Amino acid sequence: MKLRALSTLAMSGATLFVLASHQNSAGMTRIEDASRAAIRAVLAEQQAAWNRGDVENFMKGYWNSPDLSFAGSSGVTRGYEAVRTRYRKNYPDTKAMGHLEFSEIEVHPLGEDAAFVLGRWHLTRESDELGGVFTLVFERFADGWKIVHDHTSLNAKTP
Amino acid sequence: MKLRALSTLAMSGATLFVLASHQNSAGMTRIEDASRAAIRAVLAEQQAAWNRGDVENFMKGYWNSPDLSFAGSSGVTRGYEAVRTRYRKNYPDTKAMGHLEFSEIEVHPLGEDAAFVLGRWHLTRESDELGGVFTLVFERFADGWKIVHDHTSLNAKTP
Repeated sequence: MKLRALSTLAMSGATLFVLASHQNSAGMTRIEDASRAAIRAVLAEQQAAWNRGDVENFMKGYWNSPDLSFAGSSGVTRGYEAVRTRYRKNYPDTKAMGHLEFSEIEVHPLGEDAAFVLGRWHLTRESDELGGVFTLVFERFADGWKIVHDHTSLNAKTP
Repeated sequence: MKLRALSTLAMSGATLFVLASHQNSAGMTRIEDASRAAIRAVLAEQQAAWNRGDVENFMKGYWNSPDLSFAGSSGVTRGYEAVRTRYRKNYPDTKAMGHLEFSEIEVHPLGEDAAFVLGRWHLTRESDELGGVFTLVFERFADGWKIVHDHTSLNAKTP
């Protein structure tokens, strides 16, 4: 994936100088705006999937790879299957899953093929409410933007 | 900063096609290895600064910007000055700072000018020990690699 930019260069080499010379900050902003919109769409789909109790489709926001990582106060979970298993164990049914809201989402592009996202999550359940902040690292793949690393914190229970 | 790659393209346009065609995974690996080494050096300097009670030099690993962000169980701290103030408040003297060790550091390049780092931190103090995991987003600036976002978790106190 990290070589895609170079492959693209090789393929479009003949026209690249012209293209690069005319590329300007407005062009870069357009690329970044498109990335931001695509990433926000992934998160909106994740939230919607969660709120209908659909962990399988929630998981589609993640990179399906043994190198996916999920970090938090219980350490690091490694690999798509392990992350899915963790969600299924911690949230076995729709009652445990409750209602998820993401808010204050900021998408920070890192070049054209990566970005990090900072945001807040809030879970409302019959029995309790919980929430915190998350940092997501996204990369762009052939099938779209995927979370390659998730670091999620639970708010400290201080007033 | 995000436009540097494009400026480089514009400057070297004449030779770029040849270059791009010959660029290979070994070349990309060399760039990534150099990035990994530079980022590890920043973290080693941070650890050394911390362990001599030198918050000012510890802070040099961070992007000196109002857009620097630090996330954790107490929410989000925004801006270099606020992050420094937070460290000074939570760790007012060398006794509170204790001895810091980073371990299991993984540097994951995201293109040539960004990377994310996953690692563990452990603090040994006279009175207690604490630790957890961190996610750092690094970007490359004119004066080197800097942390633009830090998400640090404290391990849950479960056995």
